[in-house]
Amino acid sequence: MKARFTEILLKHGFTSDKAAHCARIFTENSLDGVYTHGLNRFPAFISTIQEGLVDCEAVPELEGTNGLIEQWNGKLGPGMLNAEFCMARAISLAGEHGIGCVAVRNTNHWMRGGTYGWQAANAGFIGICFTNTIANVPPWGGIDPRLGNNPLVIAVPRPGGPVVLDMAISQFSFGKLMQYKSAGEELPVSGGYDENGDLSTNASDVISTKRLLPIGFWKGSGLSLMLDLLVTILSKGQSTKEISEKGKEYGISQVFISIRQDDPELNARLIEQILDYTKSSRPRDADKPVAYPGENTLLTRRRNLEDGIPVDEEIWKNVLAM
Amino acid sequence: MKARFTEILLKHGFTSDKAAHCARIFTENSLDGVYTHGLNRFPAFISTIQEGLVDCEAVPELEGTNGLIEQWNGKLGPGMLNAEFCMARAISLAGEHGIGCVAVRNTNHWMRGGTYGWQAANAGFIGICFTNTIANVPPWGGIDPRLGNNPLVIAVPRPGGPVVLDMAISQFSFGKLMQYKSAGEELPVSGGYDENGDLSTNASDVISTKRLLPIGFWKGSGLSLMLDLLVTILSKGQSTKEISEKGKEYGISQVFISIRQDDPELNARLIEQILDYTKSSRPRDADKPVAYPGENTLLTRRRNLEDGIPVDEEIWKNVLAM
Repeated sequence: MKARFTEILLKHGFTSDKAAHCARIFTENSLDGVYTHGLNRFPAFISTIQEGLVDCEAVPELEGTNGLIEQWNGKLGPGMLNAEFCMARAISLAGEHGIGCVAVRNTNHWMRGGTYGWQAANAGFIGICFTNTIANVPPWGGIDPRLGNNPLVIAVPRPGGPVVLDMAISQFSFGKLMQYKSAGEELPVSGGYDENGDLSTNASDVISTKRLLPIGFWKGSGLSLMLDLLVTILSKGQSTKEISEKGKEYGISQVFISIRQDDPELNARLIEQILDYTKSSRPRDADKPVAYPGENTLLTRRRNLEDGIPVDEEIWKNVLAM
Repeated sequence: MKARFTEILLKHGFTSDKAAHCARIFTENSLDGVYTHGLNRFPAFISTIQEGLVDCEAVPELEGTNGLIEQWNGKLGPGMLNAEFCMARAISLAGEHGIGCVAVRNTNHWMRGGTYGWQAANAGFIGICFTNTIANVPPWGGIDPRLGNNPLVIAVPRPGGPVVLDMAISQFSFGKLMQYKSAGEELPVSGGYDENGDLSTNASDVISTKRLLPIGFWKGSGLSLMLDLLVTILSKGQSTKEISEKGKEYGISQVFISIRQDDPELNARLIEQILDYTKSSRPRDADKPVAYPGENTLLTRRRNLEDGIPVDEEIWKNVLAM
């Protein structure tokens, strides 16, 4: 899969270094079971290159600093490469000062946000990052989508494998809705509104209205707004408003924060204690013990490394023909 | 109200300075319409003093630093005073370095988390803070509560009044559930589980099971866990596990982050643009335009300043007799 992605990216103007880099991120996303932001998203990514929304030659440029906070311009480069670069900068700043914060404007979709949480955790650092998106969530009490589903990632390193929360502020990410739609499955809980303004468990309805339900109703609506405010004023980049008015999601704004561990051994004991306690809750379904965020990712990765990555045959065929 | 609170606090061993300070915070919480963490909570706060869970003489002590991150010991002092102190430290660090982060262990309930968001915003800074609590939320897929509802506050300063999100990770805070219970009202959406393990809109049921529903089901469950991990490893303090095993909520852990505004005028324009766009969503109910977090707080404050603070007569009578 990685070899095939690399070949295609080379055809579309990527340098061999960047092609290998992007191909690895897409492949690892599928390897970890985040198929929506791996193989399944690859053709759409190539389209953004063809449309000129993503500039595969661009590299981020430092525009300013606010004390220790760095402000970068992503120059509309590939979102995954910009995001990885910014998290690396945040880690480097955290290594020096305990905490590091990098804001980037004019960047693009980072695909799976968890990638950059894992990146920080693998380096032994705490990683926190969030992004804005095009409007796809109505604010609480409203009909028209005016908020993004603005994914939020929080990662904590741990010897046995990190704890990584990677969540859109909508109850289902857009990719997840697409997955339910193409599988023809009902959503397990309401995912948004249909065109009559009623809550719906039908993924197609929610995709067509672009009225995704935020987590916790009024609470997720508020959280999504705050994340857009933070990425916009820290990066001086485009807000969900400006992204939405262009009608296509590009040139978005993101923030990356990293924190150094002062005492990894003590932290590891504290983390284990918290996870053990959480997992000691009796399961509602005897076959499904309580899991922490990221726990199943490691299991999926191991299984897919042994058995191969399961693919949507249709999409894989398309990619082979690209 | 403030004068009465001050008198009572003086009787319970507070210095006049600290009594005035705590009385102001409790009164302002009620003034802003957060009655659950103002007057209504005051008698319970006095009980924690009488039980010796809160030490009104304690002052926070610096225990260490992790680069620019400061680690304080709250010495079991009043949670509101410790929280205000820590946010002030974070603001001061942010003034110097652009970003400041303070972790505190051995502290106590901060009452209304929004207080410290307003504090940062009033000083012209962004404020972010979060806390752990006793376990009152089952992790997703589990029956027994093992997570706190760990309130999260994000505040952004703004000339026309700050935007302040102040939310527990449960769909309803414990205080809010008590409010619905005493008013005999049904919750507008499910707030947790009854003793049969079914979702319930009855506040009494949820209070008695201590199984609050996290926002967004599995997502809030993950977010609550991450916040406990962060406050615990950054402060080296007690986790929700340790707090819960003592059976009483004291000696908790918190984190305060502040960010300096580099260009307040530009930020004000960006914020206004985002709020205007959000509020341009057609309302579902014509009488209720979309509001941003904190907007109604200012309206309530103004109304209560003019008309007086509405009180629960029973509680007010008790406080007059204390």
